Amino acid sequence: MKDEFSAWVRDIQDTICREVERTDGQEKFLEDKWSRPEGGGGITRVIQNGAVFEKGGVNTSEVHGEITPAISAQLKLGPQAPKGGFNSHLTPTLSKGEGGKAPSGGLGAFFACGISLVLHPRSPMVPTVHANYRYFEVYDKAGNVFDSWFGGGADLTPYYLFEEDAVHFHKVHKASCDTFQAGSYQVFKKQCDDYFVNTHRNNERRGVGGIFYDHMRPITSPPALSPDQTFGTVSKGEGANTTSQSLFAFAKSNGNALIDAYFPIVEKRKNLPFSEAQKHWQLIRRGRYVEFNLIHDRGTIFGLKSNGRTESILMSLPPEVRFEYDYRPEPNSEEEKLQQILLSPKDWV
Amino acid sequence: MKDEFSAWVRDIQDTICREVERTDGQEKFLEDKWSRPEGGGGITRVIQNGAVFEKGGVNTSEVHGEITPAISAQLKLGPQAPKGGFNSHLTPTLSKGEGGKAPSGGLGAFFACGISLVLHPRSPMVPTVHANYRYFEVYDKAGNVFDSWFGGGADLTPYYLFEEDAVHFHKVHKASCDTFQAGSYQVFKKQCDDYFVNTHRNNERRGVGGIFYDHMRPITSPPALSPDQTFGTVSKGEGANTTSQSLFAFAKSNGNALIDAYFPIVEKRKNLPFSEAQKHWQLIRRGRYVEFNLIHDRGTIFGLKSNGRTESILMSLPPEVRFEYDYRPEPNSEEEKLQQILLSPKDWV
Repeated sequence: MKDEFSAWVRDIQDTICREVERTDGQEKFLEDKWSRPEGGGGITRVIQNGAVFEKGGVNTSEVHGEITPAISAQLKLGPQAPKGGFNSHLTPTLSKGEGGKAPSGGLGAFFACGISLVLHPRSPMVPTVHANYRYFEVYDKAGNVFDSWFGGGADLTPYYLFEEDAVHFHKVHKASCDTFQAGSYQVFKKQCDDYFVNTHRNNERRGVGGIFYDHMRPITSPPALSPDQTFGTVSKGEGANTTSQSLFAFAKSNGNALIDAYFPIVEKRKNLPFSEAQKHWQLIRRGRYVEFNLIHDRGTIFGLKSNGRTESILMSLPPEVRFEYDYRPEPNSEEEKLQQILLSPKDWV
Repeated sequence: MKDEFSAWVRDIQDTICREVERTDGQEKFLEDKWSRPEGGGGITRVIQNGAVFEKGGVNTSEVHGEITPAISAQLKLGPQAPKGGFNSHLTPTLSKGEGGKAPSGGLGAFFACGISLVLHPRSPMVPTVHANYRYFEVYDKAGNVFDSWFGGGADLTPYYLFEEDAVHFHKVHKASCDTFQAGSYQVFKKQCDDYFVNTHRNNERRGVGGIFYDHMRPITSPPALSPDQTFGTVSKGEGANTTSQSLFAFAKSNGNALIDAYFPIVEKRKNLPFSEAQKHWQLIRRGRYVEFNLIHDRGTIFGLKSNGRTESILMSLPPEVRFEYDYRPEPNSEEEKLQQILLSPKDWV
């Protein structure tokens, strides 16, 4: 699975980058390959000052090494695992001492591989998109796979809301979830709404959401878990199709869904005219994106505090941003309408 | 002391705001008074789009209430107190279980009062300044003062380095420290260098520093501490003049020092010409300011996660900011010279 997932991640990186360049029509990606002393590395691809995309990054990484306390905390292994976190109903056993157990000799190394992308368009009529798909393995001291899981998600951040765009983005992702398991979209949609939240802004969401999941363990992952433990509240294990291959197929399906969900929106909106005032609103909203990523996003904060590659992590930040004191949109304006929806997420499908 | 400090904080707020408006010559502060349901409130004053100051805030607050777990953590009370934090040699007893003890009935309420300011000039030739002076009291269940301390500091963030400005800023603050206690400047200067650090940027400092201190307890604060416990490594208590009144006098002296340290620099630099490229460099450097405040600054993060007044806290963010992938200044340029100094702090006095 490790090799299969790695190969896919590089493949989908190429596909998405081609799609971005085709849509932009002007600028090309720059590529930085990097390696990390502790093992592994990544391929960072960044596009800046494009005709359509003002800044974007499509990054892959594949890292491995010994499990340090920081990595153990990030992977939610051992006693520091949070009890009842945002996705705890999909995070049973192993890390929480609720039936899971550590290998007798203790944990050895880990492997983590994923793709992470953020695209910031120039026009405020085109939404920002973020997606991330990843796979983890944890080994015992003898080097056998002790645990493994999949995670990922995608979310859309418009500056002006075209409701049909939000509906389209969600519908495409729901279709992908349906191929994996009926009912899973509702769970992953809610997890997305619950994760991308600026709690310090009256629980304003970063955008109109999408899907988000983590710690999806294959049934066949040793030690074998009961169906109940593996895929909690969605199905209580009945009908769950959570083999390693089906979870991988789900990641692949979501990667393709991203392309179908996002680029048609860009095509539809990229040539719309916009005013200086609308651009200004985009810069203010980008400030909220910065706030979420630097204050709340666990992956960003962990990466920055654990000697991750700073430039690859912070490619997610928008190029130009404004922070103004107590900025408020005009009552009954398009800007206020968006803000209201961000304060109470809608069902789009 | 509570009332004296509160009165001073409002007084120095007025003085500094007058100085800002006089220097700006165009724009005036807007004032927002706010109150907090749990007790107390503040006066937020913000200036935006001035001739000299693009954005600035000079805020005071005076809050009180029951000690919640979040507040206990922030005040470093009880068992969650970090062991050997950045200023641990000035943070003896009480919070660390190293001789200090909680009152027999447990802790009751707290009181916190302070002034906090950040000024972001329009011109990249004029440095940004930040300062903060504060006073805390902690009570036992019967309402008696059980513990009290002072904290504060000021630091300068230039975009182009005029060495004489950094020397001036530090000299004025050293003179203020000297009136308090010989040798204290060296301690507080180092604490400042050690605090305002973007660890994720190869330990680059936010600026050229200044002074920083915290948990300065008066000797007479009940329960009486031994001199050793009260003012650790600076003097081992010998000659320490750390009564409540002398610590208050030190805060007042630092408040005045800020005016003498900063505004002459602004006057000297505010009419210098600058290019588009120099403005661009300022926007990039402001990105680092955002990164420090949102990723590392304990006060900001605590405030945002504990239901503080978001708009007052985030007034510290610069108005316009750029985040570019892997931006590097030209070799041997003025920009690179600044960056090198931020990577290894200098002694300016």
